Amino acid sequence: MLNFMPSCSSILKFPLLQILYCNIGNPQSLGQQPITFFREVLALCDHPALLNKSETQGLFSADAIQRAQQILDQIPGRATGAYSHSQGIKGLRDAIAAGIAARDGFPADPNDIFLTDGASPGVHMMMQLLIRSEKDGILCPIPQYPLYSASIALHGGALVPYYLDEAAGWGLEISELKKQLLDAKSKGIVVRALVVINPGNPTGQVLAEGNQREIVEFCKKEGLVLLADEVYQENVYVADKKFHSFKKISRSMGYGEADISLVSFQSISKGFYGECGKRGGYMEVTGFSADVREQIYKVASVNLCSNISGQILASLVMNPPKVGDKSFESFSSEKNGILLSLARRAKILEDAFNNLEGVTCNKAEGAMYLFPRIRLPRKAIEAAEAAKTAPDAFYAHHLLDATGIVVVPGTGFGQVPGTWHFRCTILPQEDKIPAVVSRLTAFHQAFMAEFRD
Amino acid sequence: MLNFMPSCSSILKFPLLQILYCNIGNPQSLGQQPITFFREVLALCDHPALLNKSETQGLFSADAIQRAQQILDQIPGRATGAYSHSQGIKGLRDAIAAGIAARDGFPADPNDIFLTDGASPGVHMMMQLLIRSEKDGILCPIPQYPLYSASIALHGGALVPYYLDEAAGWGLEISELKKQLLDAKSKGIVVRALVVINPGNPTGQVLAEGNQREIVEFCKKEGLVLLADEVYQENVYVADKKFHSFKKISRSMGYGEADISLVSFQSISKGFYGECGKRGGYMEVTGFSADVREQIYKVASVNLCSNISGQILASLVMNPPKVGDKSFESFSSEKNGILLSLARRAKILEDAFNNLEGVTCNKAEGAMYLFPRIRLPRKAIEAAEAAKTAPDAFYAHHLLDATGIVVVPGTGFGQVPGTWHFRCTILPQEDKIPAVVSRLTAFHQAFMAEFRD
Repeated sequence: MLNFMPSCSSILKFPLLQILYCNIGNPQSLGQQPITFFREVLALCDHPALLNKSETQGLFSADAIQRAQQILDQIPGRATGAYSHSQGIKGLRDAIAAGIAARDGFPADPNDIFLTDGASPGVHMMMQLLIRSEKDGILCPIPQYPLYSASIALHGGALVPYYLDEAAGWGLEISELKKQLLDAKSKGIVVRALVVINPGNPTGQVLAEGNQREIVEFCKKEGLVLLADEVYQENVYVADKKFHSFKKISRSMGYGEADISLVSFQSISKGFYGECGKRGGYMEVTGFSADVREQIYKVASVNLCSNISGQILASLVMNPPKVGDKSFESFSSEKNGILLSLARRAKILEDAFNNLEGVTCNKAEGAMYLFPRIRLPRKAIEAAEAAKTAPDAFYAHHLLDATGIVVVPGTGFGQVPGTWHFRCTILPQEDKIPAVVSRLTAFHQAFMAEFRD
Repeated sequence: MLNFMPSCSSILKFPLLQILYCNIGNPQSLGQQPITFFREVLALCDHPALLNKSETQGLFSADAIQRAQQILDQIPGRATGAYSHSQGIKGLRDAIAAGIAARDGFPADPNDIFLTDGASPGVHMMMQLLIRSEKDGILCPIPQYPLYSASIALHGGALVPYYLDEAAGWGLEISELKKQLLDAKSKGIVVRALVVINPGNPTGQVLAEGNQREIVEFCKKEGLVLLADEVYQENVYVADKKFHSFKKISRSMGYGEADISLVSFQSISKGFYGECGKRGGYMEVTGFSADVREQIYKVASVNLCSNISGQILASLVMNPPKVGDKSFESFSSEKNGILLSLARRAKILEDAFNNLEGVTCNKAEGAMYLFPRIRLPRKAIEAAEAAKTAPDAFYAHHLLDATGIVVVPGTGFGQVPGTWHFRCTILPQEDKIPAVVSRLTAFHQAFMAEFRD
């Protein structure tokens, strides 16, 4: 279900064609370099003996050495190879809570932080706790990152879909939430939580602040747990949109612990740093009773703890170098280089999609994806039916065969029945983007010429 | 359920007493140093820019530099921050398969290896796949590491217990397996798998080769999946016992893929290296149909991949430096230093337990634990009942309060009803062992003086 890799047989059809991977949000696999400061600190924490050697001064930046010392001081016995507290190392949670407070302007409690191996295990933990039977429902956006549908299925619950409004830039309408909630209730489903992905995956939209307030109000009124997937919080590419955490929004509305149950998921896999393989992340859990908190802790402790390298990286992404730090300039230059390049790539690809016959594409305001809609000719749909495949998968397979470009059919994320899409990342390095655009454009013209009604 | 930490209130009773942790298999938390070669390689893989600097030659051993280069060459794009194949990086699985083949003298297939964040996620994956309803049973040793009971409960199956024979050095009797299997069948339970922990946790025994053959034969005959927890394979302390993997045993009996379904779990948390916090491990999955293999892969891919640092470490523990390698001597000295010290500690503690009134303790042949039996006086049992706690927990709490020594009551692992035990690790550093022995001995004398019938 989450397997976004094409089959080998498709790849091998033109073995000499360079494959252009636009299917997975995995930036370092496509040549994006890790952030130097983060990796310096990680290497020093992995091999602390380096800190006592004179050569180290010449090899590492002074603030990376200092940060590694600070982090090691926060780890009992400086033991980066020991199991930690099941929520994660307390000193690192302190640092993350400070980072959240600085981001939001509202306090954060280190006891609310649960460090995890990426965001996925956190989502699974919450689904495990929320879903008691097949009559428990979770409201999920359609289209959605299929981690949610997979996790709900694994835990035996009911996915209650709400459709994002493509015509309104993948807007989230409260009327749609209300309608789906009522509909679920009429089927005997007890809806327990609402998943919101902001910035959106696969849709790339960034929610407006006013919309977020409505969502908070809705969850409060209906007594729903708000599961806020905020793993793309650093990836915003447009000047008129800004990321606001749901915690900040709800606190700014005057709602505290007693008013709303809220879980915010963060990951080191996304952002500009893209440390997918390091498997780090956290969830910030607020507004639950002591009983439920105890259960969350119990589930977290079954696998002992998340990996310490991921924990260290999570503390770093929430506390990067600051003005005045030795690494600040090089860090900022690496960060801005990546984000500005992503913004350029997003715009070029968006324009390219909108130039194709029958294709419309909303802006990638954030995240790492575009989700263009393709109006497929009747003949193409019939050919797909004859080939026993979904029309968007038919298109995507033809695209791969003809061009080596790998995208994910919209079917994998859900879409309004009768509409067809695909997800395309903005992650190929910038020198590859012209090839993506030219091959895609030529393919689409040929495809339409073949199948036009 | 897996929370082996004492409550704070207990610790605070004598705030000036140094706590002696004998509760968790977490060696680096107690001062054990990581293996230098492993950490050198890890640091270089985390920050590959080091490989181009001249200072690096003076800071790292030559074979660590060479190994890091090899590992990076095996990672597509040398990207240690990218998601890998959901089973783990192919080149690292090749190395692990080669390590297994060298250990066993039988071939191993890299496609059978699933790299995981420690052994626990592998166990959960298999339980998820094996358990379809509450009528599906898993045969588990009693006493057992409670990961198994927790995972079976989480996935809604039935734990079918079989008791290890304490009088026979925690022996595993086939007659007991047969009896429990029949008993489960009579209750309508479909037993699907047998868990064997070798070397044992919490019991520390190492299975004899003949016994392992009987177990393989039993699983083959009854059509049970053999889940072999082999995470302590490096921890054997007695000359007359040797670790043999169940794969080696079954292959040496002439049984191949078609004869027995076998999963071997390995972890980087245990062994002499004790890299618990790095969360690495693998399962080797043999003897399943292509269909089931596909399902295992699907479940593995839900969380994308295990962390790359853990993957690298797993490849290193299965392929440590060899004779002739630059680091071989220092590596061997670190390894033997740890293992010989653990053997000494095990023996001292075993003798100390056996010197206590009413206490008997089997040998720690392997793993990291002793599991002494305490025959508690009737008065102590009544006092425990009055305090609404299990008698072994009552003893363990008194021990903690009086001495600062933390052990885990046998109740946490299961035991023959009416018998009482506790698990004590052999992990406190050697200079702490005399304090453990003297405090424990004095406590036990006082306890018996207070409660003797």
